[in-house]
Amino acid sequence: MINKYLSIGIFCPLFVLNIQAEEGMWQLSQLPDLNLEKIGFEISAGDIYSPDKLSISTAIVWLGGCSASFVSADGLVLTNHHCAYGSLQRNSAKDSIDYIDEGFLAKDRSEELPAIGQHAYVLKSMADVTDVILKSVKGIEALTEKEKRIEQKITAMEKEAENDREDRYCYIATNYNGKQYVKYLFNKYQDVRIVFAPPAAIGNYGGDIDNWMWPRHTGDFTYLRVYQAPDGSGAKYSDDNIPLKPGNYLKIAKTDLKDGDMTFILGYPGRTMRYRSSYSVDWNLNRTYIPRIERFQSILDIITEMSNENQEAKLKLASYDAGLNNTMKNFQGNVDGMQSSNFIENKRAFEADLMSFINSKRKLKKMYGDVMEKIAAQYAILEQSYDYDQVLENFGGYTIGVLYNLGSKAYDVARERAKPETDRRPEFSEKRVKDGMANLDYAYLRFYEPFDKTMLTRALQQAAKLPEEQRITALDFILKGSMEIDAWVDDAFAKTGLKDIAYVKDLYNKTPEEIEALNDPLIDLAIKLYDAKDRKYEEGKVWNAQIQDLRKKYIDALYAWKGQSLYPDANSTMRFTFGKVKGYKPADGIWYEPFTTLKGVVEKDTGEEPFNNPAKLTELSRSKDYGKWIDPELGDVPSCFLAECDITGGNSGSAVMNAKGELIGLAFDGNYEAMTSDWLYNPELQRTIVVDIRYVLFITDKFAGADYLLKEMGI
Amino acid sequence: MINKYLSIGIFCPLFVLNIQAEEGMWQLSQLPDLNLEKIGFEISAGDIYSPDKLSISTAIVWLGGCSASFVSADGLVLTNHHCAYGSLQRNSAKDSIDYIDEGFLAKDRSEELPAIGQHAYVLKSMADVTDVILKSVKGIEALTEKEKRIEQKITAMEKEAENDREDRYCYIATNYNGKQYVKYLFNKYQDVRIVFAPPAAIGNYGGDIDNWMWPRHTGDFTYLRVYQAPDGSGAKYSDDNIPLKPGNYLKIAKTDLKDGDMTFILGYPGRTMRYRSSYSVDWNLNRTYIPRIERFQSILDIITEMSNENQEAKLKLASYDAGLNNTMKNFQGNVDGMQSSNFIENKRAFEADLMSFINSKRKLKKMYGDVMEKIAAQYAILEQSYDYDQVLENFGGYTIGVLYNLGSKAYDVARERAKPETDRRPEFSEKRVKDGMANLDYAYLRFYEPFDKTMLTRALQQAAKLPEEQRITALDFILKGSMEIDAWVDDAFAKTGLKDIAYVKDLYNKTPEEIEALNDPLIDLAIKLYDAKDRKYEEGKVWNAQIQDLRKKYIDALYAWKGQSLYPDANSTMRFTFGKVKGYKPADGIWYEPFTTLKGVVEKDTGEEPFNNPAKLTELSRSKDYGKWIDPELGDVPSCFLAECDITGGNSGSAVMNAKGELIGLAFDGNYEAMTSDWLYNPELQRTIVVDIRYVLFITDKFAGADYLLKEMGI
Repeated sequence: MINKYLSIGIFCPLFVLNIQAEEGMWQLSQLPDLNLEKIGFEISAGDIYSPDKLSISTAIVWLGGCSASFVSADGLVLTNHHCAYGSLQRNSAKDSIDYIDEGFLAKDRSEELPAIGQHAYVLKSMADVTDVILKSVKGIEALTEKEKRIEQKITAMEKEAENDREDRYCYIATNYNGKQYVKYLFNKYQDVRIVFAPPAAIGNYGGDIDNWMWPRHTGDFTYLRVYQAPDGSGAKYSDDNIPLKPGNYLKIAKTDLKDGDMTFILGYPGRTMRYRSSYSVDWNLNRTYIPRIERFQSILDIITEMSNENQEAKLKLASYDAGLNNTMKNFQGNVDGMQSSNFIENKRAFEADLMSFINSKRKLKKMYGDVMEKIAAQYAILEQSYDYDQVLENFGGYTIGVLYNLGSKAYDVARERAKPETDRRPEFSEKRVKDGMANLDYAYLRFYEPFDKTMLTRALQQAAKLPEEQRITALDFILKGSMEIDAWVDDAFAKTGLKDIAYVKDLYNKTPEEIEALNDPLIDLAIKLYDAKDRKYEEGKVWNAQIQDLRKKYIDALYAWKGQSLYPDANSTMRFTFGKVKGYKPADGIWYEPFTTLKGVVEKDTGEEPFNNPAKLTELSRSKDYGKWIDPELGDVPSCFLAECDITGGNSGSAVMNAKGELIGLAFDGNYEAMTSDWLYNPELQRTIVVDIRYVLFITDKFAGADYLLKEMGI
Repeated sequence: MINKYLSIGIFCPLFVLNIQAEEGMWQLSQLPDLNLEKIGFEISAGDIYSPDKLSISTAIVWLGGCSASFVSADGLVLTNHHCAYGSLQRNSAKDSIDYIDEGFLAKDRSEELPAIGQHAYVLKSMADVTDVILKSVKGIEALTEKEKRIEQKITAMEKEAENDREDRYCYIATNYNGKQYVKYLFNKYQDVRIVFAPPAAIGNYGGDIDNWMWPRHTGDFTYLRVYQAPDGSGAKYSDDNIPLKPGNYLKIAKTDLKDGDMTFILGYPGRTMRYRSSYSVDWNLNRTYIPRIERFQSILDIITEMSNENQEAKLKLASYDAGLNNTMKNFQGNVDGMQSSNFIENKRAFEADLMSFINSKRKLKKMYGDVMEKIAAQYAILEQSYDYDQVLENFGGYTIGVLYNLGSKAYDVARERAKPETDRRPEFSEKRVKDGMANLDYAYLRFYEPFDKTMLTRALQQAAKLPEEQRITALDFILKGSMEIDAWVDDAFAKTGLKDIAYVKDLYNKTPEEIEALNDPLIDLAIKLYDAKDRKYEEGKVWNAQIQDLRKKYIDALYAWKGQSLYPDANSTMRFTFGKVKGYKPADGIWYEPFTTLKGVVEKDTGEEPFNNPAKLTELSRSKDYGKWIDPELGDVPSCFLAECDITGGNSGSAVMNAKGELIGLAFDGNYEAMTSDWLYNPELQRTIVVDIRYVLFITDKFAGADYLLKEMGI
């Protein structure tokens, strides 16, 4: 049934004139339809992916949130510096050495650092399981029930495939809002080590200021190495483990990359919304992006104030600060992009055209005639409880601090464990719970008590501002109690046991009733809120089932109109995208060239973070000590380049290859002017920002002197 | 003697590798040596300037501070909007209509507004008078005496040439620090009228933010018309006057301008310092630019605060604010440029090479061997009294307010008039004094009392901070008196008569003693400071005579080394410069394209000043109602363009012409990246920013509907 979508042809969801071969995050199974050889590829679709032979895709690694690739026969992996940031930070805390600022280079394998908390996933197989899943819900009409059953079926199939092996990971991805299901089975390697990370003054050069920006000069790379047990299993860290011999690894490009050259990317893009309605865009713009930017800014202001006063605060809150800044800039880019391009108006006009076609055909009108009104009605539901939902959302995630989250999570687990196995939410499967518990050791890395208290106080104060009739009654015991909010928070932080990791871990051995009996004030707050959040969760399931069904219909209507095929939205599965090395025009009178250079790195140097370029790099530039990494046309070492490839978050660290399939760089960012790209690909503006492999190797060679890595990669 | 400098060849004062045909603000007499036809000109040197026939230079107009050109047989003139800004402001005050914000279009000639305070100068003749002048000081060795005699000779010759006619203006320019003197004689037209000025939202679009910046989208043009008396004299405004029939006027280009096309400019560049030593650069960077930026910023802060509180302050201080911002940005650009390019170090290295050559030749060593040390010694003199001089400088010009300046100027005039005619300073010749008096009617346009008081208070407070032994004793009567500074200023402003224009004008009928007898406290302050300032003036004359002699030697030494010819530094005389339409690379990874477009104008629109693009212009862009002003390659109306021409302040409003000598635009700015251009021409970075004539005509035609102007220009 889904096969019709897999035939050749490009579908452009919004503006038919935009049709460009560069659009698309294609499934590997769609590769044969792309006619690669006709657009300049010197390798075949089968060289890139083949279910039954070694191919380039065999060398691609998923890091869970980031992408990577093998670059040697001994399990050496290249990914982005920002993808290894967490591991570096955890090691820094452990060793009291700042591996972020100073960088890290293992002189030999014995010196490699365990990349704490980092796993590597290598795809073992993929299979279309649409028939199996849809057969299991045949005859069920009620949407919520159907979705629940599908979820249960997926969980069961994943569990079966993983077979209780902790070095297996199965993920059944939902494509096209449930028109296709694909099962991905991975080997999971739990022993990943850090080999070489440049100092942040290279790996994160430009920091938040340059983030999403071109021209870019960031050496955003880190070398890792994947280890396995002697028996070949993906065991946890052990001295006995040996480097993985991957099925395949990428070769470094032998020719210099030029403007206009064809490139492609294999990686794990996280999420796109290319087939959404104007109602969804409107909601996301005005009810998500804009209010969240305000919220983020207010939290960033708190962090800045605390960090200015206190070095501990600065260290503890740094990655949090970076994350918020990054996301906020993304949201702001979406807002700017949508507002400046009349995004919603254009979507509405497109939908009006679509519906006028649908309504002109009796049969289609009957099937899809009311889809837009029904989608509108769904968003009207969200609107009703908007203020309440916003406040409730504050009691979770980045807006509430570490301690509350620790207590809340443990209580949620206890409640889920008390349910029959089939009723448990998928994210609370015993396996996921155990994965989460493994990370508890790092729970306090970001814990800075004054900040934690401020965040909780802030959430409670906002709850206090809700109108009486919309109030969260579960909070009455504080907000209508005798203590001021500040005082309550002080008292709760004084009395809670959540600052003790042994206490936290022990919570996972308790029943809900046992946790309730602790009378821990921070956990009690989570307990009080449990029902309100659970109700929201259940409402959300109903809403999701309905909107997913409507989105499925919307795509069907689009297909009926345009009769063309399409690629599924990104969902953290391996995808292929291609396009040429190309600059772009960010504004009237300006052309952004596709390459930056070492000279440009030095020109940005201010001596101050994030432009505190290492003196050694300046000296290498001054003395033109480029080694073999000079580009003859540029007369300098290339730093970063732009390509038309269509990527999104999750692609960070992805291998970028030339028409021969050789490694030419690592994707690490998109550009600000195309931040609405998750919603729409714009061929004029959307670019992937890549750190040139020649810069990676120049730093490895001339800056770090890590000759043995070059040798290992065959250079 | 100077003729050797007029032969062909290009002299590059700093870096020999920089030699580029585009460098140079050439005297018209040097045109035949430039081999124009070989570099793409379709007209000859004689078509551009010829002493004995009509040529393009005949159509060039000097506005005193700005440049312009005739564009019709009826005296129609095109210049920059910012050049006519003062006239528009004065008319706005008179008519209570905001011609700046609203723009002005005369429906026919009867509606044209007198451009109050604006004169137009048309070059009548030029002649090398070096021999005459040098002969007059033959045998005089003492430098100060010699300079004084030259000054007197120049004043006498100018007076003789002007022959007491108020419609004549003579200016004898000093080239190469006194190696050449050239006499320029102008017809001066005192009746200039405003024909069409676009609203500031076009004419000053981008304001201070875009000032000096590319990409640029400013329609910086205004049409004026020059009138003469029926007898042909340049009489003052009268209803009887008739439009001037200029000897020549420029024709509008008939072909579309393209990237790479040859262009040239005729205009009146004000001042460059291309042949200065490293000591001069050092002094200007560290003792002029940097401290002045601080001073300007502190004054701008005061203006901003007052303007935010008070609409009157905003109006009165607006042009003052704009001027300070503009100059400060220029200074900052110089600082940035000098610091980032190691300007001083490079100059020193160059001078070391120069001196090592000079010292290698016995004869040259004898003549120039000590020139660098002597220049150094001159700057050491300035250093000794630096703090004192800074404070004294505050009592004059932009740092002291309107009233004090009015009183001080009148007293200075009385003192000068009391001297024998030959001892009077040239800027106090009776003619100059009368010119100044004519402008007294506009004296209070910028007078806002609270600001005036603040500026005087500020100057006194800074004087109070001088160390006791360096103090300005003339201020003891205030600073060592019984009143606080604030109270003294309040009292002085309450008692002074300087707020009454009749009182001010009457000062010009008085002797110094009569003015002293008035006991006007603000004038008394000027009287007390007179001696200190006069002493500085005399010291300055000695210093100048010495440094000028040394600079002359420095140029001789350079010539002895390089043996090439050169163009003189700019000095507000007509110059020729040429170069191609060309973009530039402001930073790694960025190329600035040479054309901007109407689309870009609209894209910058924020609805708020200075990006408050008129709705009508947006609509013209939206509906692609470009008329005949569309550029076929751009598919849009060009807005501004870049050319390699070598210009500086004073060139504003200059006609830019193509290889055929047809008008293609008006120069109105330089670019930020080349702000050190007054010190050094950098072919990679220096560009002239030009408003494209097609944009001028598009606005005239489609926006303003001023068809009669197009017809008058033969379109």
